[in-house]
Amino acid sequence: MLVGAGLLASQSAYAWDGVVEKQIFEMEEYTTQGGDTIEDLKVGWEAYGTLNEARDNVILITHFFSGTSHAAGRYQEDGDNNGYWDSIIGPGKPLDTDRYYIISSDTLVNLNAHDPNVTTTGPASINPATGEPWGMEFPMVTIRDFVEVQRELLESQDIDQLHAVMGASMGALQAIEWASAYPDKVERLISVIGAGVTDPWLLTKLGTWAAPIRLDANWNEGDYYDDHPPLDGLKEALKLVTIDANHPEWFNETFDRSWAEQNADPARNIDARYALEKTLDELAAARAEQSDANHLLYLVQANQAFVAGHGDSLEQGLAAIDAPTFMLYSEKDLIFTPEGVRRTAELIEADGTQVDIQPLEGNRGHLDGVVSIDQASEQLREFLEQD
Amino acid sequence: MLVGAGLLASQSAYAWDGVVEKQIFEMEEYTTQGGDTIEDLKVGWEAYGTLNEARDNVILITHFFSGTSHAAGRYQEDGDNNGYWDSIIGPGKPLDTDRYYIISSDTLVNLNAHDPNVTTTGPASINPATGEPWGMEFPMVTIRDFVEVQRELLESQDIDQLHAVMGASMGALQAIEWASAYPDKVERLISVIGAGVTDPWLLTKLGTWAAPIRLDANWNEGDYYDDHPPLDGLKEALKLVTIDANHPEWFNETFDRSWAEQNADPARNIDARYALEKTLDELAAARAEQSDANHLLYLVQANQAFVAGHGDSLEQGLAAIDAPTFMLYSEKDLIFTPEGVRRTAELIEADGTQVDIQPLEGNRGHLDGVVSIDQASEQLREFLEQD
Repeated sequence: MLVGAGLLASQSAYAWDGVVEKQIFEMEEYTTQGGDTIEDLKVGWEAYGTLNEARDNVILITHFFSGTSHAAGRYQEDGDNNGYWDSIIGPGKPLDTDRYYIISSDTLVNLNAHDPNVTTTGPASINPATGEPWGMEFPMVTIRDFVEVQRELLESQDIDQLHAVMGASMGALQAIEWASAYPDKVERLISVIGAGVTDPWLLTKLGTWAAPIRLDANWNEGDYYDDHPPLDGLKEALKLVTIDANHPEWFNETFDRSWAEQNADPARNIDARYALEKTLDELAAARAEQSDANHLLYLVQANQAFVAGHGDSLEQGLAAIDAPTFMLYSEKDLIFTPEGVRRTAELIEADGTQVDIQPLEGNRGHLDGVVSIDQASEQLREFLEQD
Repeated sequence: MLVGAGLLASQSAYAWDGVVEKQIFEMEEYTTQGGDTIEDLKVGWEAYGTLNEARDNVILITHFFSGTSHAAGRYQEDGDNNGYWDSIIGPGKPLDTDRYYIISSDTLVNLNAHDPNVTTTGPASINPATGEPWGMEFPMVTIRDFVEVQRELLESQDIDQLHAVMGASMGALQAIEWASAYPDKVERLISVIGAGVTDPWLLTKLGTWAAPIRLDANWNEGDYYDDHPPLDGLKEALKLVTIDANHPEWFNETFDRSWAEQNADPARNIDARYALEKTLDELAAARAEQSDANHLLYLVQANQAFVAGHGDSLEQGLAAIDAPTFMLYSEKDLIFTPEGVRRTAELIEADGTQVDIQPLEGNRGHLDGVVSIDQASEQLREFLEQD
């Protein structure tokens, strides 16, 4: 009884209450995979739970294309938890903050460069050499660069081993790259709605996200930081991201054919539109205010370039993975197709590495990896607990 | 023997050899469903086979969004047949030109306004009242207006009955509208990769096709006929049409991750791209030269507005159809989803109208309705022959 009470008290003392302290990791200098130098690199990060003395209870969370490090919790004491994976991260949850130290960082060239809760380094950042924003002079970066900056962040906390690395979509690419590049550091890999390579289909889709920005005259070859940013193009790009990340079923079950304005029939007025178009435009416009157009272009190209291991062969890149792997995906995913996910599983499994693969249900398709992740709660818990 | 030889000789005399004579139908005045007047309306048309004396062997073909009336044959004696449905239209084929008089017309606001083989009336046409191109002053038109102009064309040839009406995609919308608006004239309905209503998903998709044009500064609110047309925006729009009309499988089985330029790695150069992006861009640029941006905007809105019967209720619009109906679709269609096609079939069938529905196989999805139509040859032949 006393022992039990003591344990409970101890757990209670460590219990994470959902308030997140956003922190900043800085490097004087970082050299990209392409050999370019970025001085004064900064990325934001946050953590949930407590690092144990052995420093072996770490789960790294890597974020998706339009995401940030805010995977769980709230920034204000009196706010609501609004992390994207709140349903699985917290005390007693599968990613148990009483047990694990869960850390998440903003990537380089993070899309939400103008969100006050995001810290990132990219084209919108000041180039110390010139005192001006980098713009299109910013060095090219890859998913592997995102991983390398995360590795430096972890090393700054004397963390050398990951109990697990887990990410959705672009986050899955980072998680896969981690497991491929550092098989000795990664003990478990959880890939959600992602795959080992950006296939020709997704290459094409990503290209369509970049196009509206380049069409906007305000983009001005990326040189807009002293003037009007290309918000119209950025808005259209973000709208395409939202549309492509959802399945037709979601649109048909969520929206109807209502007009945006009661007296403006889009069949009778070339400038009239439908309510759902207005809704999607407004959502995209709000996100555009916090986002940076050049960052989106860099993100597109980093994602297009992804092949696990960044070497000559996808097979080798995935064969390098030794960590037991859990893959969650959607049969309705129109970004990372189920065929691509299955092929990735086969290639990781080819040399005997354990791979479990499980579909998520829902009408979102790709986005079910974010909004419906709690369906896999028990399997995630078991996978994280297995030796 | 003699009778047989005579029949063969007779058929041979009538056999259509694939050379198409493009013709123009003109109306002094047409009043749209919205009550606006279009003077000097012109649309191109072509026909394959011979109208019989009873004038009861007519099959009307209605074209898709980016299509023209050129469903079969060749314009030049020494050219190759290049109609989009050559595989099913011709002597002895399911749409047998020895038997049927098959007629096809360019729609109003046809996308390919600058194709010398296309005649259409739309924003790029001269408004007789001003002597200038209509631009955005062109009246709004609907799928029903396309049907009404076709009805006038047929009446000009004393044709009152259709043995069948058949179209793919936007052509299916016209065919469905024909059968709903004129149940006494339409004896058979063949709807290919289409449905009874543009659902919220497709509304959204169509809106994304219009957006790049409006983003292009050269669009200039539709007033560009004296200046540079918005070719960059139009190109991007046409690229989206191509992408959306195909299934991910086609991209992954057709393309790879090659770079567009051997020495320009898109992972290392923000202006470099992949070979498949270059291919899609070049295809779209070539099509943009023949197309008109404002016509695309009008087509988008006509398609968005579609509900069979153009009345208050989809159920009523489809219940009005009495013609035996044959529906071809693809389970991989990302424009008209299989759920929407099945729902359309159910609503047509609800009052006892015969509906046959059959999937097309292939890796194109939506476009299998054009490129893989010959899979349904026998069923089309039987359906056209049934009393």
